[in-house]
Amino acid sequence: MVGVKSVPSPAISADDRSHEVDHPSSEVAHFGADQPLRLDCGVDLTPFQIAYKTYGELNADRSNAVLICHALTGDQHVANVHPVTGKPGWWETLVGPGRPLDPARYFIICSNVIGGCMGSTGPASINPATGKVWGLDFPVITIPDMVRAQAMLIDRLGIDTLFAVVGGSMGGMQVLQWTAAYPARVYSALAIACATRHSAQNIAFHELGRQAVMADPDWHNGAYADQGIHPHRGLAVARMAAHITYLSDAALHRKFGRRMQDRELPTFSFDADFQVESYLRYQGSSFVERFDANSYLYLTRAMDYFDIAADHGGVLAKAFAGIQTRFCVVSFTSDWLFPTSESRALVHALNASSARVSFAEIETDRGHDAFLLDVPEFFDISRAFLQSAGKARGLTSKND
Amino acid sequence: MVGVKSVPSPAISADDRSHEVDHPSSEVAHFGADQPLRLDCGVDLTPFQIAYKTYGELNADRSNAVLICHALTGDQHVANVHPVTGKPGWWETLVGPGRPLDPARYFIICSNVIGGCMGSTGPASINPATGKVWGLDFPVITIPDMVRAQAMLIDRLGIDTLFAVVGGSMGGMQVLQWTAAYPARVYSALAIACATRHSAQNIAFHELGRQAVMADPDWHNGAYADQGIHPHRGLAVARMAAHITYLSDAALHRKFGRRMQDRELPTFSFDADFQVESYLRYQGSSFVERFDANSYLYLTRAMDYFDIAADHGGVLAKAFAGIQTRFCVVSFTSDWLFPTSESRALVHALNASSARVSFAEIETDRGHDAFLLDVPEFFDISRAFLQSAGKARGLTSKND
Repeated sequence: MVGVKSVPSPAISADDRSHEVDHPSSEVAHFGADQPLRLDCGVDLTPFQIAYKTYGELNADRSNAVLICHALTGDQHVANVHPVTGKPGWWETLVGPGRPLDPARYFIICSNVIGGCMGSTGPASINPATGKVWGLDFPVITIPDMVRAQAMLIDRLGIDTLFAVVGGSMGGMQVLQWTAAYPARVYSALAIACATRHSAQNIAFHELGRQAVMADPDWHNGAYADQGIHPHRGLAVARMAAHITYLSDAALHRKFGRRMQDRELPTFSFDADFQVESYLRYQGSSFVERFDANSYLYLTRAMDYFDIAADHGGVLAKAFAGIQTRFCVVSFTSDWLFPTSESRALVHALNASSARVSFAEIETDRGHDAFLLDVPEFFDISRAFLQSAGKARGLTSKND
Repeated sequence: MVGVKSVPSPAISADDRSHEVDHPSSEVAHFGADQPLRLDCGVDLTPFQIAYKTYGELNADRSNAVLICHALTGDQHVANVHPVTGKPGWWETLVGPGRPLDPARYFIICSNVIGGCMGSTGPASINPATGKVWGLDFPVITIPDMVRAQAMLIDRLGIDTLFAVVGGSMGGMQVLQWTAAYPARVYSALAIACATRHSAQNIAFHELGRQAVMADPDWHNGAYADQGIHPHRGLAVARMAAHITYLSDAALHRKFGRRMQDRELPTFSFDADFQVESYLRYQGSSFVERFDANSYLYLTRAMDYFDIAADHGGVLAKAFAGIQTRFCVVSFTSDWLFPTSESRALVHALNASSARVSFAEIETDRGHDAFLLDVPEFFDISRAFLQSAGKARGLTSKND
């Protein structure tokens, strides 16, 4: 099997790449006036761009492409040092040499979602109509909009059918949307720690985060860029709230319990006496260095609106009727944000659609975040699923 | 049995009552320089005052007094129309004619905690040393401090032994502290939806709320009263966060699900499309009308510091060694803020102390808030426990 270069040169012209200034560490696909992105809200977004990373090489018959969909605060830097934080890629546990998604075997693509803030068009981009930052004038986007933009990128890359679409949390929602919207283009789907719709409690936590951002006077009704400032405080509070939901009660107890921070006795003050307080404050303050507040509003909104069944007359199974995609659905026992019951509802719908589906609930106390952590059982299941699908697909590599 | 007036006149002089201006609907007990409140932080708080309400009449042998301890955002208005909100008392489901705590049978006392903002001394009170509002100069208080102040009030009312101490959530913490600190003064204890210490997750949610308040520029490092303003936005966000923790996922799903607010289709905006968003916003905005932001900081801090075992060499059973008090411990299946496991740990410690204890886990999907709602099984258990204890205590009334 002969590999070709990761980005086929005919697909992206030099002109298309002329605006790669913000994130030179990523490739950027530009879509001009002839290729608007039709959004669910009725707006045609044009022009727009999608920033992405690739790992490995596309094989000759273009059958080994894997699309990774990132979660709410993730981005395209799945398996390389992050250009802003300097930290390792966010999914190097799953993606990399010897990992279940090995670039020696697969051509791996990860793009920043539309509405994001790492190079794809979003509320922090320039509105060509005004020459100013979009802010709240940016149209509200949805999970289907994100997937529609990804499909245009995949077209641009000259790929017809993806061998696999993989993602957790909001990334898992995109995986499910891919299979519902483009069933013939997805050979296998690995949907992790996700749901086919956002629950009332999940919407409540997101609304809390949005209200925290909007309560910050520096938010300026979304037009903070015009003032040269950023609602750091509100966004940090939003991040703290979200972060609590990513961990389980048991994990917080194990990691921190009631241990004090650098002291034995309480200070009788509002200092961060407890380690868990110090940890949360750090999570909030570090997040605002790399994320745009309006993007946070838009992406949480997209998750809240997500409800596959609603787009199919309220019957979830209809979304997957006749689907040939091979599914692997994974949940974690201590994930209370996307509990196993949500995954079971998905599996039941897939069963009702006679889809091929395997399902694993993995025992861990690490909560929703488990999908990003070193959980060997999760990797074993992912690897076995991908290998089995690869065999059926006729994928081989020198590693087999 | 001959009843006496609820507030024995010799105990509170006319002079003591001279400052009842803020909340004329409550009685206020003033403690002067001769009776400082010794706080855990080492400060002697003086002068201070405790605002309270009573219902029913103290019997001749002063054996029918019940102290109700309120939760974080509760106050002394347990069974009367609230003077600020105009709403019914917060525990009229449990307290009132024909209810388990019937004023025809018991002399019921409920006082605003020290650190509170409904008439008891707290950070919104005037610091006599400066003539200005205390703000963050107010000493940090603890659950034991709250109980110490209540014991001084009970002394003032001429009551030696309380027939019962009753409370849920932070009120339940006070119940447990009463039995640990004054075992001989508590004949029976009804501790509901609480724990002997605050968990890491609970501390995390409280820290989130505090950071939301402190992120509001109107907070002014606690000195907002000097500016004639109040950090409404930050406090509303804190309340929203807390409110989510009071309800279960199932209750939110049942009450709101993904139902839209006055519309069928999404607006593709950041309006409150979903009912649950509108509900949360209302919870936030209505709360700030009746609660002081600094009080919220102080009371959440008191809960975070609470850890009965830590005060007894880390051994919970030692806190209750040799105790004669009759306990009833109640938890709710869907309460994830104070889950049943916390109540079981308490019951085990009480068993190890050979205390009399009954325990009930009540099946409900209503979450932590269940203790404030109409849950018949909870009332039945409370009534039976109080009647049984009353019989042992030799309490009778015309209703028996």
